[in-house]
Amino acid sequence: MSPARRYAIIGTGAIGGFYGARLAAAGCDVHFLLRSDYDHVRTHGLRVESPLGDLHLHPVQAYDRADRLPPADVTVVALKATENHRLPDLLPAPTRGGGVVLMLQNGLGNEAEAARVVGPDRVLGGLCFVCSNKVGPGHVRHLDYGFVTLGAHSADGSPRGVTEAMRAVGADLERGGVEVHFADDLVLARWKKLVWNVPFNGLSVLLGATCDRLVGHPATRRLAEDLMGEVQAGARACGKRIEDEFLAHLMALTERMAPYRTSMMLDAERGRPLEVEPIFGVPLRTAEAAGARLPRLQVLYALLSFLDARLRACRSAGSG
Amino acid sequence: MSPARRYAIIGTGAIGGFYGARLAAAGCDVHFLLRSDYDHVRTHGLRVESPLGDLHLHPVQAYDRADRLPPADVTVVALKATENHRLPDLLPAPTRGGGVVLMLQNGLGNEAEAARVVGPDRVLGGLCFVCSNKVGPGHVRHLDYGFVTLGAHSADGSPRGVTEAMRAVGADLERGGVEVHFADDLVLARWKKLVWNVPFNGLSVLLGATCDRLVGHPATRRLAEDLMGEVQAGARACGKRIEDEFLAHLMALTERMAPYRTSMMLDAERGRPLEVEPIFGVPLRTAEAAGARLPRLQVLYALLSFLDARLRACRSAGSG
Repeated sequence: MSPARRYAIIGTGAIGGFYGARLAAAGCDVHFLLRSDYDHVRTHGLRVESPLGDLHLHPVQAYDRADRLPPADVTVVALKATENHRLPDLLPAPTRGGGVVLMLQNGLGNEAEAARVVGPDRVLGGLCFVCSNKVGPGHVRHLDYGFVTLGAHSADGSPRGVTEAMRAVGADLERGGVEVHFADDLVLARWKKLVWNVPFNGLSVLLGATCDRLVGHPATRRLAEDLMGEVQAGARACGKRIEDEFLAHLMALTERMAPYRTSMMLDAERGRPLEVEPIFGVPLRTAEAAGARLPRLQVLYALLSFLDARLRACRSAGSG
Repeated sequence: MSPARRYAIIGTGAIGGFYGARLAAAGCDVHFLLRSDYDHVRTHGLRVESPLGDLHLHPVQAYDRADRLPPADVTVVALKATENHRLPDLLPAPTRGGGVVLMLQNGLGNEAEAARVVGPDRVLGGLCFVCSNKVGPGHVRHLDYGFVTLGAHSADGSPRGVTEAMRAVGADLERGGVEVHFADDLVLARWKKLVWNVPFNGLSVLLGATCDRLVGHPATRRLAEDLMGEVQAGARACGKRIEDEFLAHLMALTERMAPYRTSMMLDAERGRPLEVEPIFGVPLRTAEAAGARLPRLQVLYALLSFLDARLRACRSAGSG
């Protein structure tokens, strides 16, 4: 029997804590990079409550400095995408042995940022469909869903099919109880997720409203549909085809949702930086470079970038 | 010497109180319709502080019911446009002698609402460029500016030139110290005011930001310019030509403004209904009917109509 695959988890929050603990439960050799929770987790371990079964990892292979991480087969980046400027400092140590990087983040362009550090052929992307929150130091509460769609990055955005690395990570996650899907075309999968994230993350922040309210008011429902259409048009300009039925399906799902605060709405309420670039800015610029015109998405991008700049200014003022 | 012209002021707030008092100072026979301030004004009169000179009208020809107003030569509607559903109750008494109606309101379509009650040939529009606030019962504080542009309504929106009624009202206002301009084409004048109101009223409410902040952030400044361009395109589709230089001039003026809270931003902060239809909804539908596509304006309209519906729901809940 081959030795367990080694994982480095960069960012041990709601996403990294949950999937990292599931990988540990699957018998993988998991190393966690922490910041503010480092001392707590060293002393008390990492606790994950979940309908899949509660987990308490103790002791934890915990690190407070990226350069102390061992070389890993898979480095999982579960930071918010707003932290990706730190990747040149974070990735070299765990990837020095030649492993792959798995970006568990929202939006477009994140894999390319990792690729600038480790090269394009060693980057995977993962789309998480999960309700999970960090509720305290070293304490994650997983509420619902949890499946992951894995795909492989390519420098030109073309489909790379299902790679060996994808299968290996997928097998570990499934052994940990996580449902895994494979996407032949990672960029297409990313655009499809944007079809929902653009209208509902954006409008929920701008209007301080849960999704049920947004689809319950005729003007914002119509706007959400128009925004979905613009994302579809942006994807098409980039050679990625999304069917009309997929848009209608997402709208129908959203209508049936309980009052739901999107992750970006929670970030705005908590005064945290918003993932404006990967969800709005990069898709807009990518589609425009390919000849598409997305005026509604442009409005959302301008409004959110203004709000985000103000949130960041308040944070600096608060920490000064 | 002919007897003084008689005015009925419908809505004695920051606008109606200010211009009504200037007309009274000019020697006109002015009758004021009030609601919540009626008793106060009967007892204490109407006070208007102004750089033009303070005025204290006492006694005031005050009314608490529109049907008690005498027939007037000019009925001035200085309500917020959100109250125009009341015009069929408010206008018949003061206009029964055949006088004209002057709509001192923002946006498109208000004159048409008055025309549905009194006929199209008896309606004037006035665009007020004034900083004036109601600071207490029967107490208005005029801060700056004050000039009025007058124009005549026509059923088909074509220019009617400078009419006799415009000259008469203009002469009275000027005698009261108010600078008056005449617009040959009222609809063009309304569209030109929208070039500023659409971006700056809209974005100030959506982002809770004063105009200096909006033009100081690159993305919102660019969006404001794009919105100005859409209003210009909407006007052009309706046969009204606005030069590029006018847009650049407004942007330059806005850059030099002190931190300014637009009237719609104040309404939103105070939980009052927003003038979404005359400033956004009617221009959008009018331009679309003429073949223009204004996607950015459509986004603002959807967002503001959602916020306005929530403000109204809060008000009903609060007063229930």
